[in-house]
Amino acid sequence: MNFASDNVSPFCPEVFEALAHDATNNAPAYGSDALSAQLDATFSELFDKEVAVIPVATGTAANCISLSALVSPYGGVVCHHEAHINEDESTGVAFFTGGAKLLPMDGPAAKLEAATLDRFVSGLVDRGVHSVSPECVAITQATELGTVYSIDEVNAIGAVCRDHDLRLFMDGARFANAVAHLNCHPADVTWKAGVDAISFGATKNGAMAVDAIVLFDTSLKARIEQARKRSGHLHSKHRYLATQLLAYVKDDVWLKNAAHANAATKALEDVLGKQGASLAHAAEGNELFVKMSPELATRLRDAGLMFHGWPSLGSDVYRFVCAWNTDIAQINALNTTLG
Amino acid sequence: MNFASDNVSPFCPEVFEALAHDATNNAPAYGSDALSAQLDATFSELFDKEVAVIPVATGTAANCISLSALVSPYGGVVCHHEAHINEDESTGVAFFTGGAKLLPMDGPAAKLEAATLDRFVSGLVDRGVHSVSPECVAITQATELGTVYSIDEVNAIGAVCRDHDLRLFMDGARFANAVAHLNCHPADVTWKAGVDAISFGATKNGAMAVDAIVLFDTSLKARIEQARKRSGHLHSKHRYLATQLLAYVKDDVWLKNAAHANAATKALEDVLGKQGASLAHAAEGNELFVKMSPELATRLRDAGLMFHGWPSLGSDVYRFVCAWNTDIAQINALNTTLG
Amino acid sequence: MNFASDNVSPFCPEVFEALAHDATNNAPAYGSDALSAQLDATFSELFDKEVAVIPVATGTAANCISLSALVSPYGGVVCHHEAHINEDESTGVAFFTGGAKLLPMDGPAAKLEAATLDRFVSGLVDRGVHSVSPECVAITQATELGTVYSIDEVNAIGAVCRDHDLRLFMDGARFANAVAHLNCHPADVTWKAGVDAISFGATKNGAMAVDAIVLFDTSLKARIEQARKRSGHLHSKHRYLATQLLAYVKDDVWLKNAAHANAATKALEDVLGKQGASLAHAAEGNELFVKMSPELATRLRDAGLMFHGWPSLGSDVYRFVCAWNTDIAQINALNTTLG
Amino acid sequence: MNFASDNVSPFCPEVFEALAHDATNNAPAYGSDALSAQLDATFSELFDKEVAVIPVATGTAANCISLSALVSPYGGVVCHHEAHINEDESTGVAFFTGGAKLLPMDGPAAKLEAATLDRFVSGLVDRGVHSVSPECVAITQATELGTVYSIDEVNAIGAVCRDHDLRLFMDGARFANAVAHLNCHPADVTWKAGVDAISFGATKNGAMAVDAIVLFDTSLKARIEQARKRSGHLHSKHRYLATQLLAYVKDDVWLKNAAHANAATKALEDVLGKQGASLAHAAEGNELFVKMSPELATRLRDAGLMFHGWPSLGSDVYRFVCAWNTDIAQINALNTTLG
Repeated sequence: MNFASDNVSPFCPEVFEALAHDATNNAPAYGSDALSAQLDATFSELFDKEVAVIPVATGTAANCISLSALVSPYGGVVCHHEAHINEDESTGVAFFTGGAKLLPMDGPAAKLEAATLDRFVSGLVDRGVHSVSPECVAITQATELGTVYSIDEVNAIGAVCRDHDLRLFMDGARFANAVAHLNCHPADVTWKAGVDAISFGATKNGAMAVDAIVLFDTSLKARIEQARKRSGHLHSKHRYLATQLLAYVKDDVWLKNAAHANAATKALEDVLGKQGASLAHAAEGNELFVKMSPELATRLRDAGLMFHGWPSLGSDVYRFVCAWNTDIAQINALNTTLG
Repeated sequence: MNFASDNVSPFCPEVFEALAHDATNNAPAYGSDALSAQLDATFSELFDKEVAVIPVATGTAANCISLSALVSPYGGVVCHHEAHINEDESTGVAFFTGGAKLLPMDGPAAKLEAATLDRFVSGLVDRGVHSVSPECVAITQATELGTVYSIDEVNAIGAVCRDHDLRLFMDGARFANAVAHLNCHPADVTWKAGVDAISFGATKNGAMAVDAIVLFDTSLKARIEQARKRSGHLHSKHRYLATQLLAYVKDDVWLKNAAHANAATKALEDVLGKQGASLAHAAEGNELFVKMSPELATRLRDAGLMFHGWPSLGSDVYRFVCAWNTDIAQINALNTTLG
Repeated sequence: MNFASDNVSPFCPEVFEALAHDATNNAPAYGSDALSAQLDATFSELFDKEVAVIPVATGTAANCISLSALVSPYGGVVCHHEAHINEDESTGVAFFTGGAKLLPMDGPAAKLEAATLDRFVSGLVDRGVHSVSPECVAITQATELGTVYSIDEVNAIGAVCRDHDLRLFMDGARFANAVAHLNCHPADVTWKAGVDAISFGATKNGAMAVDAIVLFDTSLKARIEQARKRSGHLHSKHRYLATQLLAYVKDDVWLKNAAHANAATKALEDVLGKQGASLAHAAEGNELFVKMSPELATRLRDAGLMFHGWPSLGSDVYRFVCAWNTDIAQINALNTTLG
Repeated sequence: MNFASDNVSPFCPEVFEALAHDATNNAPAYGSDALSAQLDATFSELFDKEVAVIPVATGTAANCISLSALVSPYGGVVCHHEAHINEDESTGVAFFTGGAKLLPMDGPAAKLEAATLDRFVSGLVDRGVHSVSPECVAITQATELGTVYSIDEVNAIGAVCRDHDLRLFMDGARFANAVAHLNCHPADVTWKAGVDAISFGATKNGAMAVDAIVLFDTSLKARIEQARKRSGHLHSKHRYLATQLLAYVKDDVWLKNAAHANAATKALEDVLGKQGASLAHAAEGNELFVKMSPELATRLRDAGLMFHGWPSLGSDVYRFVCAWNTDIAQINALNTTLG
């Protein structure tokens, strides 16, 4: 079984059916088609607020294009040092923003804590043009370490941002997993808590290649569209991005897929626990970080499990990721296989 | 019938079948999968030379990422003023290259002529660091105006580039249409003529969303891969880019699709000629530019034809584009419909 | 005599005295000193309007930093193709703006004409995010070819800018020569005519190294100061920039220097005319462009005159530039020397 | 007495004399003059190696332009978190390099230690294009906290750089103070230890406004000159930069000035020690960091001393900086004044 990443999963049946259904006709290019025209309304209903939706094919594009409209070339973006934008997107943020600087800080299990954030921002010495002033805070929901911000926690961060006149961005590559875990309305952990824009991930959770920039501040739309075009992220056959997204959110597919991945993760947590692995920290989404002995790791690999060590958390820590298509019965059967 | 652009066409059956076939299994992410691993060999065979292939989802990305490795931030890119990179990609080239400047020049029907290019480059006054020195020439094959460089013409441009120590890049968004028209080996109008890199277009000609950067100078690969990642163009489910490309070139699908589009264009040229339209210039690929009266334009639109006026060529000039799925019988039937 | 450029001249006595006077004491750094504190008020009086002044050491810095606050990374800057920002500042504009594109146009003797500008801007096809929209117009006063915009001409250009919602920037590397020629109030050809910002040149006309960004729209100040710092143009011993500027404008030194240079140019025009040279176009500032035979050019060089050919205006065109220190008596004596 | 910064000092007599001597004649612009022509030879002799010298007016320009040739837009620059490029140059490094990322690390009193550097670099997880790979190490000599790398220490860092195939850059804003302290040949702590380029500071130590980029790897020259021009740092009256530099290094003025500043610092250390202040860490150049009570700080300020608190080192830490013109007798007299 492949627990290396949720990126190893294929697209889900609903997304495939939508692509298949849309395969035979001509349609206007660059977003002027009927499917693309439905995006704003569909997501406005989903979020219970008028939003603007700009789809792109990757999460890095969604994150960096969003930030290019939220921070000046001279500004700073506060984030957790484990943040994907800090650790996994090369020099993307500086490239798209024209030079803005990441200001990484710490926090338990990849989460920023409001009080710590407040102290961090307050503690940055403002030496005018010489230093870099924070202009935006970026949080990831669910985090890169598989934890989930509660509604209260996002609200508290939003309040700190308002106090310091900072924009709030959410990397939602695994937003579905977070909402499925919280069992809340998507508005509760986004715009109602002060989030200005989110990259609404779909690729990891059942799409082929699409993440949506969802703007709760629709005044950002024009700049985002300019930034998307010049960076080569405006697709000519734009409808295929739209198709994927519409299928992904229709009939709560996104939440069903995520709930499945989360449940599979819980099942795997049980199995591994019985084998002697212990949680490195709580597994609240579809990512599981456990401590275990090298012997156990070897035994799991011999049994056909694929997963990565996670040395930044310790030499005895390993990551397992489940996806919408992870077979839970097969996980449970591991109890027998592993003995 | 929709002649507005080849971008209005859907993906072709072969590409769809490949995507469908690849839908159900897990596979490594970010290009470590088995399909992606076939790309270099497949295209090396196609071009009869060892090449490196880096797929991206759009032509603008393919063009601009390529140029970022061919020109310094201080350099210039000579191109026709009608070039897509000059007219249709916003400020993409400056963005990806860190500031390089387009140096547009003229030529008949969007083609650079070797002798004119030589004079243009020779005539650029070199004032050292004050002025911008050309470092690269970019040509489009087939051109934005539907003309095609002959083998001799590309060779002549390649020779000028060597004389002036310039890189040669080819925007091949409609490369298939050019090769189908020339009925030549793809090597004849690329690396054998001195082309360093090409954006090998597939999206307009039957794919969903993929163009391939093909590097004849494989030493550029590492920089291209860095530029792709930081600009958000490395897909996590990379295999879907590979799948499309492999299906697109297998069994000459790319050439069959292009030959069909070219033939449809010829058929349309005949039909419109009978109605009194005249060629603005030769239609050698899948784009047709004609002069006609406003009355004829209105009559065509009333008959259900969709197409654009092309004011940069004159107020009486219109563009028609055919694609892999254009129905030639339906075009021929226009003779009856239009009377 | 050296007519190669006004850049060959040294600093003038008044500037030197100011530097000498300011040489012996300590003073706060980075613009917190008493001299720097006088700049805004001094220039506000000079321009009869509240302005913000940000000094830098070079004209390229003044131009490019200014434009970085007047145009977005996706926008265009309309200028004459002879403009210094287009011909002589490498890829500076793209670098400082994050990718903005120069949109060069034509006009007699390096001047934009309001009616032509209006047609040019109106004629730019707006294809949304695909094309580059003009956001700013940049004119040079006096122009790179030694001509001067009249008050009416600048007003007419300002009106076109307002009609099209464009910013208006003035490259004033030789602003003093223009004002001396027009014998007008500096306000008449700047903010009263709609200019948003000017690079107020001093280096060519008697300073050692300082040009001032003068903002008539003071809301731009914060961004300009950020752009200055990050580009390394904020001097630690900022007072030496201030000293030069204050001495330069005190007691109309700037206008006296420019008037002298302009008069020297007129004197040279007379001398060369008598030798058979003819004006390429009117010499209104301190630059003189003449047509003459190769024989005459050789004879002048043999007589010790240094000057450049100007091939972009024709193989028989040459440029002569006078400065604040050009010896008019020595010019007049050329009548005898040259016979 | 003003101990706020060495930037508060004026230019020194030798520099002033050179400027005065050079004030009256015409000379070619942009570095084609006779003074500029002496730079390479003069500094080659100074460093006992063929070098290329590119002067600019500020330290930020010298640092950032240098780094733009030493690191790719995708690469990382390892530096101490106290480094000027990290703390005091806004987003300059990202701006000039096109996006390169600073990778700050720790070390005692602003110094990188070779063993720690080796571990830091080795510990950076290389995830290919996803992560940022270090390409360059930047150290400051003397450091921002007034400490000085010994010859052995620089050699050890150079060895680590060679092991990891990293470029080595030295921010030498206070290089003179370091060499005066070490009483070594400038070559010993630069190219002989593996340094590729240094920003050779002059402004803080007696010049008006000039720092020199000195390239020990002269192959970088062309790129540096391009980067200087496009960023507006090529002075038209370039000779005034050259004049300052030539006067600064002639007859060891730079070392005499620095030795004086260092001695003044020692004198001040004695005075403050007698008052009860203690060293925060060793004062090896012209910067002194002391711990003292608020009462003592107040008493010193009441006595006319100007200096800054340095909260990043603790709320009871203060910085005093001496310069070439600091009056040592006046410092010694403080013993009496302060009682």
